[in-house]
Amino acid sequence: MPLEDHIPSLQDIREAADRITPFIHRTPVLTCSALDGMTGAKLYFKCENLQKVGAFKIRGATNAVQVLSDEVASRGVATHSSGNHAAALALAALTRNISAHIVMPENSPQVKKDAVAGYGAEITFCESTLEAREHTLTKILKRTGATFIPPYNDYRIIAGQATAVLELLEACPNLDMIVAPVGGGGLICGTALATQYLSPNTKTVGAEPTQADDAYRSFHAKKLIPSDNPDTIADGLLTSLGDLTFPILLEHVDEMITASEEGISTAMRHIWERMKIVVEPSSAVPLAALLENQINITGKRIGIILTGGNVDLDALPWATQIRNS
Amino acid sequence: MPLEDHIPSLQDIREAADRITPFIHRTPVLTCSALDGMTGAKLYFKCENLQKVGAFKIRGATNAVQVLSDEVASRGVATHSSGNHAAALALAALTRNISAHIVMPENSPQVKKDAVAGYGAEITFCESTLEAREHTLTKILKRTGATFIPPYNDYRIIAGQATAVLELLEACPNLDMIVAPVGGGGLICGTALATQYLSPNTKTVGAEPTQADDAYRSFHAKKLIPSDNPDTIADGLLTSLGDLTFPILLEHVDEMITASEEGISTAMRHIWERMKIVVEPSSAVPLAALLENQINITGKRIGIILTGGNVDLDALPWATQIRNS
Repeated sequence: MPLEDHIPSLQDIREAADRITPFIHRTPVLTCSALDGMTGAKLYFKCENLQKVGAFKIRGATNAVQVLSDEVASRGVATHSSGNHAAALALAALTRNISAHIVMPENSPQVKKDAVAGYGAEITFCESTLEAREHTLTKILKRTGATFIPPYNDYRIIAGQATAVLELLEACPNLDMIVAPVGGGGLICGTALATQYLSPNTKTVGAEPTQADDAYRSFHAKKLIPSDNPDTIADGLLTSLGDLTFPILLEHVDEMITASEEGISTAMRHIWERMKIVVEPSSAVPLAALLENQINITGKRIGIILTGGNVDLDALPWATQIRNS
Repeated sequence: MPLEDHIPSLQDIREAADRITPFIHRTPVLTCSALDGMTGAKLYFKCENLQKVGAFKIRGATNAVQVLSDEVASRGVATHSSGNHAAALALAALTRNISAHIVMPENSPQVKKDAVAGYGAEITFCESTLEAREHTLTKILKRTGATFIPPYNDYRIIAGQATAVLELLEACPNLDMIVAPVGGGGLICGTALATQYLSPNTKTVGAEPTQADDAYRSFHAKKLIPSDNPDTIADGLLTSLGDLTFPILLEHVDEMITASEEGISTAMRHIWERMKIVVEPSSAVPLAALLENQINITGKRIGIILTGGNVDLDALPWATQIRNS
């Protein structure tokens, strides 16, 4: 059965890892005694901000592009994305020497627009609504015959994102918990599946901004509730769950936690100052939620996925606060 | 012969590595295709900004503190330092459960003052001249009986700093060149010695700000020329060479290169944006000098030591430029 037609098995995830390893970084797992002190836990940060294109998204995109037949691949790939998936698909296509057509909302961060253009993709800008994105994309698919590679609602993508957790669990066995941010659900589903296959005693926890908590609400209502005007500095987490990601999240994720905007900004700054790495706001959501004491983590061994580092250095949350004050 | 009385041998450096390994991070070596593209070389960044206390300085300080006899150690340690060595000695002393007395210039960055205080050291502030530092320190040594652990002009320190290059050469053999910044010379001397012992075909290159180029001038004049009103954003590189570091530099370093202030700021921003890591200006000096085309590096395999990541996030060079413009 083709990979895109079923929930990824452990075998599928291992094959995805073999498929993408030549094209990605094996990112380090960093620890930080200062942050351990703040949380009372032992934290292991899987640094996908140090990944190619500055985000874990290159894993899923590369898996989806590499698994295409030569004939299908030759017509190119296309997607809509507010940023990291766009850059990831552009690089994955460049690596396979095929064309990439990217639909981006006009209000995407400049740094992400530049990255996509830098990888040689053809960009079409549109309004930031899901409707505008999908309409624009449909026209492109019709015109080019390219294959749509969705940002998250796709089993090839989920299998690719899961490979980050393969590496984390190899480096750090016996974690009590792995916490990952939740946007459209590609990463959290990959995380939950890989964790359940390889380390069934490890819990999977999803973290969201309180101001974009559609997955939190969907999880508790046990039905898919789309985002409703989400408003958060974590610009990677604005999207709603999909019809493929929601059922996996509901069945395999153990808990959902949320973080305030102020908490996200503070946690982001802690990571920059204490760990000396650049993360985007979305990456700071798990630490922010843990620091807001939503669950008991004292003495626990906790894996955290730092999802990306693509941030405009001229528009940092704390600099904005200073300018406005 | 005690370690402090002779130029470190390979055996001394290996013993230093064994001595400090339990107390430090083995930092990752990162690569970045975007920076490779800018330079035309293949760059391997040894990320000591991700080291404990955010700088390689913990290596030398830990080596010097751990090698003390129990009786000598019990009276504590002391030093003067504008920042990273201060924090490093404070943590090294805390780890051995002995007291640390730190003389800091009043104009040290706040983030570095906070770090030293956070490790429980006793801080005495003084004017920023070398004379004021030494005078203040002498009084403290007399009062406490503590052992002076110099920031760089000390063979125990040099042996400790050399361990970063042991790790780099293990991870990346067959480098054509290793480039490290030069302040007082502790790191560049450790780098040159370890490189000569382990990889004699690899050149050692020192990098300095053009506006603090005392080592560059000393190297070419073949005599020790102290700093004369150095003025650079690379605040870790203001110090002059010492009587122990200069002869090692003269004999074992192959070349010296320099970087403009604008180049340092630009290279620092490239590292933040492309590599997603936080480095302080001093760390960016080697890349800045390479980008200013001082030596031919096309196609070369080059190790670069990123020395530290302690920077005030509210006073970044490019933010200052924006505010002033």
